[in-house]
Amino acid sequence: MEIEVLRIGQRIVRDDRVTTHVALVARSFGAQKIMMNEVNPEIKETIQKINDTWGGKFSVEFIDSWKPVIKKKKQEGYKIVHLTMYGENINQIQSKIKKEEKLVIVVGAEKVPREIYEFADYNVAIGNQPHSEISGLAILMDRIQEGSQFNKVFSGGKRTIIPSKNGKNVVMKETRD
Amino acid sequence: MEIEVLRIGQRIVRDDRVTTHVALVARSFGAQKIMMNEVNPEIKETIQKINDTWGGKFSVEFIDSWKPVIKKKKQEGYKIVHLTMYGENINQIQSKIKKEEKLVIVVGAEKVPREIYEFADYNVAIGNQPHSEISGLAILMDRIQEGSQFNKVFSGGKRTIIPSKNGKNVVMKETRD
Repeated sequence: MEIEVLRIGQRIVRDDRVTTHVALVARSFGAQKIMMNEVNPEIKETIQKINDTWGGKFSVEFIDSWKPVIKKKKQEGYKIVHLTMYGENINQIQSKIKKEEKLVIVVGAEKVPREIYEFADYNVAIGNQPHSEISGLAILMDRIQEGSQFNKVFSGGKRTIIPSKNGKNVVMKETRD
Repeated sequence: MEIEVLRIGQRIVRDDRVTTHVALVARSFGAQKIMMNEVNPEIKETIQKINDTWGGKFSVEFIDSWKPVIKKKKQEGYKIVHLTMYGENINQIQSKIKKEEKLVIVVGAEKVPREIYEFADYNVAIGNQPHSEISGLAILMDRIQEGSQFNKVFSGGKRTIIPSKNGKNVVMKETRD
């Protein structure tokens, strides 16, 4: 499955760390890229450093406006999944979403434009209680990929973790400078 | 399954929002409580307001020091699960953890004391790539409860969401003031 993430509605500074965590989830759970507007440009550098260290080709794309992006993606055959605590319960809807081939997952911050609900092919609630866009994105991606994202190899990084029962085991391809 | 969460290693102000999101995940994914030290007291008020609005009895407990808490919990029969990107892959270890009856999940921030790895019955990696303690906690709780947490009713709140395909449908028990 091809997955891209669109982050909207965040406020600069106040939401920077949350947006960074959203980007890190998108990357580590196997999305190809995250698209964002109105965002601190440092987030792109942070993610680039993570790629350098831990591998993979995940990309951050700055956009001007979300609406033309969604329209274009729909024309290209992507289905739009909007995460919202008001949507359909993931437990009920996941089997349908799992069958899609190309997804754009829209991750809003506190306020999202009303139109998103109409543009979306799926409005999905990761439970109907408030938690976090970070956990929401993670659960959606885990469910629709059935955990296979955690077996994926991120190639080209400087370090690789070897899973360990009680310590840290890291293979370094380069010494630290 | 009885689940409590222990948050450690966070820095006041810098990690406040992340810690709040960790607490919200703990609550909405069915933990009984979160224990924290060195934390902004406002987080407790924030969670209390969420309980008032959305129901349930989730509690925030401030502690002095994590070590005696873990020792006591172990004596009471709790198993300690420490989330770390260096641990065993959740895909491999989840079936064992699922069989436990009482868990304390330890959620560290960037730096955690080395001893935690030894105290833990399970050091668990939600994939071996960096992402977020918020997403890590969410995936662990979702996997070991097999999604049943999202069918749980949080009673006593002022509002309840009725899942909806493309809008917001909220039952209000009280009018807004």
